[in-house]
Amino acid sequence: MKLIRFGSAGQEKTGIVIDQLLYDTSSFGEDYNEVFFETDGIKRLSAFVASNKDNLPVIDPNVRLGSPFARPTKIVCIGLNYAKHAKETNAAIPREPIIFFKSTSALTGPNDNIVIPKDSIKTDWEVELAFVIGKKASYVKEEHALDYVAGYCLHNDVSEREFQLERGGTWDKGKGCDTFAPMGPWLATKDEIDDVDNLRLWLSVNGKIMQFGNTDDLIFGIPKLVSYLSQFMTLLPGDVISTGTPHGVGLGFTPPVFLKPGDVVELGIDGLGVSKQHVVAYQQETG
Amino acid sequence: MKLIRFGSAGQEKTGIVIDQLLYDTSSFGEDYNEVFFETDGIKRLSAFVASNKDNLPVIDPNVRLGSPFARPTKIVCIGLNYAKHAKETNAAIPREPIIFFKSTSALTGPNDNIVIPKDSIKTDWEVELAFVIGKKASYVKEEHALDYVAGYCLHNDVSEREFQLERGGTWDKGKGCDTFAPMGPWLATKDEIDDVDNLRLWLSVNGKIMQFGNTDDLIFGIPKLVSYLSQFMTLLPGDVISTGTPHGVGLGFTPPVFLKPGDVVELGIDGLGVSKQHVVAYQQETG
Repeated sequence: MKLIRFGSAGQEKTGIVIDQLLYDTSSFGEDYNEVFFETDGIKRLSAFVASNKDNLPVIDPNVRLGSPFARPTKIVCIGLNYAKHAKETNAAIPREPIIFFKSTSALTGPNDNIVIPKDSIKTDWEVELAFVIGKKASYVKEEHALDYVAGYCLHNDVSEREFQLERGGTWDKGKGCDTFAPMGPWLATKDEIDDVDNLRLWLSVNGKIMQFGNTDDLIFGIPKLVSYLSQFMTLLPGDVISTGTPHGVGLGFTPPVFLKPGDVVELGIDGLGVSKQHVVAYQQETG
Repeated sequence: MKLIRFGSAGQEKTGIVIDQLLYDTSSFGEDYNEVFFETDGIKRLSAFVASNKDNLPVIDPNVRLGSPFARPTKIVCIGLNYAKHAKETNAAIPREPIIFFKSTSALTGPNDNIVIPKDSIKTDWEVELAFVIGKKASYVKEEHALDYVAGYCLHNDVSEREFQLERGGTWDKGKGCDTFAPMGPWLATKDEIDDVDNLRLWLSVNGKIMQFGNTDDLIFGIPKLVSYLSQFMTLLPGDVISTGTPHGVGLGFTPPVFLKPGDVVELGIDGLGVSKQHVVAYQQETG
């Protein structure tokens, strides 16, 4: 299945995508949140859809989409997980996964605006494959790791490079600004993706391709990441892990290129759809 | 008021402390969570207590206490915020606040066990003053910052130093293990604390005082922290900010001293009570 959430921000209803059409599943009565994933929600939703498909309302395809899942308890990101991206940022190839957190208040819909923070001059893009945890994971072995994954999702890990790298301390400072985590359009359940280790991913700015990679270049794959992370913290159902970005970010250019108001960012991953964000300046009261 | 939550883990009820006695406020009908703080819950609870005090059940003082608030959307911690602590860890005095995240899955009650993670040999203690956000904070000015604070709380920012410092990447890896965030015993509302800039805080291991400090030594005080953090992310009602630890952590000794199973950690802050944690080894299925 492909899960979506739609409607105005903060009041999203749930839905699914079947053969390009969007259907309202709000009659199922549950949001796609921690409790949903924890209680085998995907399986239950699938049965519900099978029984009710003819009665599900079709949604206007121009509806606003929200993040395809409710706010998770954490968004954990992996840094420098593609070799060429590590090189472009002048960083060493990591010997073990580098992790940081994205404030969950950064979560937005796939086509919502990216708001450049106040006093920011280095807002950058990062197309990433994210995955969602399906059940509580603590000290999981790599060979069992995929049992803990519910599905996959497109993510733009928007990053402010000055905040991230020049303001002291950890990267977390440049990753969690409002609107810095557009997710979606949909959450694809595992069965939708034939080979998650061979997905092309790309990102363009104003129509020009800036990033083009393939998940077969990931240094640490999903089973390793689930197992590794679960040694340091318990991953809860609905938690999101973002696997890192391929080369081609703005910071990697000479001179660097950053986003400015009016820019349009588009990105996509095989099987996970396309998202599009307009870049706008921060205005009092928008944040 | 002094807010508490009590009962078995994951099923806590709400309460308050008045004159050393614990009262059950579950008839108020709300958990101390994001919605509670967002909707002026402290004021409403105060009115409820004033009207119902004679009917509130007194609780057994030996009841298990949980964290005094429900799981927040984030726990943001400030690093190296006391000058002598920066020195003992061989770090420079920060020019601006250093921040990192603690996985919210680390949250536990004030007297719950600290579980040493599997393969950990460097689990350490950190007594800290934490505060809870009372209303949504984005780009807040320092002079208005205290309007965004709901109250204060004792926190042991338990830290695994190898995971934090020797495993690559950010500190987040060593801060979010299960049981690494004992909070409480209570959340003191702002009016309970006369001068938050002059609170003594201490921590002992097996009865021996290891940390003794005063919040008058904080490099960056609470107004600065609220204002600063709100430039980088939106702080939501119920979010927790932990202000950093004074010197005397295990890492600062020569040679370093770390926690081992059987140790007992006790800590306290003026007006915010005392907590006590027994240290135990990780056992399969406890995590």
